[in-house]
Amino acid sequence: MTEYIVGVDLGGTKIRTALATLDGEVRAEVEVPTNAQAGYTRVLERIAETVEELRRQVGLTTKPLRVGLGAPGPLDPVRGIVHVAPNLGWRNVSLVSDLAKLTGVPVFLENDANLAAIGEFTYGAGKGTRDMIYLTVSTGIGGGLILGGRLYRGAGYGAGEIGHITLLPDGPLCSCGNRGCLEALASGTAIAREARELIGKGGGQSILALAGGAEDAVTAKTVARAAYQGDAEAKALFDKAARWLGVGIAAAANLLNPAVVVLGGGVMKSAALFWGRLEEEVAARVLPGTREVLRLKRAELGKRSGVLGAVAFAIRPE
Amino acid sequence: MTEYIVGVDLGGTKIRTALATLDGEVRAEVEVPTNAQAGYTRVLERIAETVEELRRQVGLTTKPLRVGLGAPGPLDPVRGIVHVAPNLGWRNVSLVSDLAKLTGVPVFLENDANLAAIGEFTYGAGKGTRDMIYLTVSTGIGGGLILGGRLYRGAGYGAGEIGHITLLPDGPLCSCGNRGCLEALASGTAIAREARELIGKGGGQSILALAGGAEDAVTAKTVARAAYQGDAEAKALFDKAARWLGVGIAAAANLLNPAVVVLGGGVMKSAALFWGRLEEEVAARVLPGTREVLRLKRAELGKRSGVLGAVAFAIRPE
Repeated sequence: MTEYIVGVDLGGTKIRTALATLDGEVRAEVEVPTNAQAGYTRVLERIAETVEELRRQVGLTTKPLRVGLGAPGPLDPVRGIVHVAPNLGWRNVSLVSDLAKLTGVPVFLENDANLAAIGEFTYGAGKGTRDMIYLTVSTGIGGGLILGGRLYRGAGYGAGEIGHITLLPDGPLCSCGNRGCLEALASGTAIAREARELIGKGGGQSILALAGGAEDAVTAKTVARAAYQGDAEAKALFDKAARWLGVGIAAAANLLNPAVVVLGGGVMKSAALFWGRLEEEVAARVLPGTREVLRLKRAELGKRSGVLGAVAFAIRPE
Repeated sequence: MTEYIVGVDLGGTKIRTALATLDGEVRAEVEVPTNAQAGYTRVLERIAETVEELRRQVGLTTKPLRVGLGAPGPLDPVRGIVHVAPNLGWRNVSLVSDLAKLTGVPVFLENDANLAAIGEFTYGAGKGTRDMIYLTVSTGIGGGLILGGRLYRGAGYGAGEIGHITLLPDGPLCSCGNRGCLEALASGTAIAREARELIGKGGGQSILALAGGAEDAVTAKTVARAAYQGDAEAKALFDKAARWLGVGIAAAANLLNPAVVVLGGGVMKSAALFWGRLEEEVAARVLPGTREVLRLKRAELGKRSGVLGAVAFAIRPE
């Protein structure tokens, strides 16, 4: 009899769940809204419901062997606790034991960026390598490290925070409270902030027009749209962000000498706008020994990287 | 019968060799000048002579089991080749096979900073941890990473180059050709360069006086001496370097979430001048999850960290 596991990618807005065999073959997959405002217990019930739904779809009469669960926020994978998850409104919740009780299945927890890294490493752009840095560039910049073929967690389960490498000590304030972090210079939020600053100085009129004239409505997407239409100011904003991204990637690559750096996240949907600039900056800044082995690649699994990482993690929890 | 191994730390100016038991107990140790100008073959003979000398001292009649050898420069530990070692004047030498032929003992090669990291991890400031970043701050800034209890080499054996994290993209030129690397901002060479720039602008007169009035003779040591005598300009130079060192360490710590960062090298002899400033900068810049687990420590083995790392490596070559 085939045995199954479940992977869950729990995000602030969506829950994505997949049922797969122990060989990693996905048999069914579903995405539902998180509805975080309904509260902690209701979110857990939603997760359990997706698992039931997939069991029904596949016609599985037994329980799955394990659930691999990715969640945001600083968390303790060993004790199974999420310390803080602002998007979900959670603080120090015993996610693992609560969900295990609800589903009757053992649950293994890991942070979402780490699982996305495992996903790309196992099924996507990092396949076949042993040393990989994964970055997700969206409203923030998160990351995960696969070193020597395994997820590297760090002494306090906090490794991979490439978004919080300082690149400009007196630079813009970051969400972490520090200044000049990579995240504060190259995330979608940073691009939007720079665009609004430009508009505040009387520039960026094409960008503003695309946001319906409302400065507050300007996002990185608006800037990307303007850049695709040929707007030079918008292009310059992406160039600047790409330069910082290159500086940050080169710093991490010089430290870790990986075979591949994989970039995912919403901002990478606009990669065509700045990929050349990014590659150029990385090549200029990495040491010869790293330049020789390093490849820069776009993530290949899109919004499925997290759930597929959760599947791989459920198959072989470390 | 007790079996022995040998650890060798080959530097540009000195060779340090130790004979130890498989339990890591050092029975004899010797240091001789490298005399690199005498040429490659003569340096190899010097190494072989130190091994013979130690065997005599201990009264060992058999050959040691293995030699663990630390050497400078980008090298390939698997093929046993040193690619470039400017201090020794070497390029693409087959160090492992040549030394093995000469001594009749199997040789295992690793770069010197990685072995110093292993030394501090096994016998020094990193003992008892699993995740450690080692930095050596001297004329340059080198480093080595112990992750999950093992040396992490990277995909091209080039991991640990913490000195070449970019911190100031348009900053001073680094020896690697890049701009604004940690090494270009906080090494002994950087401190001396800043002092000479200060003198060039008419300042730094106490520093200049301590160098006998010769601007070219100013080194980081001269600046340290002036600072210890209470010179405010010299103290400010160390403060500035310590700040950059803190920014660089925080960047690496946010990425790797280590339990300990160990600092060695010549500049750390003056650590009393800047340790407080350094700790402050690191604390201000690391993420909460890293701040909780991280300790900043001075290396404990002094000039023996390399040779003791070579001993540990010879005992258990990975």
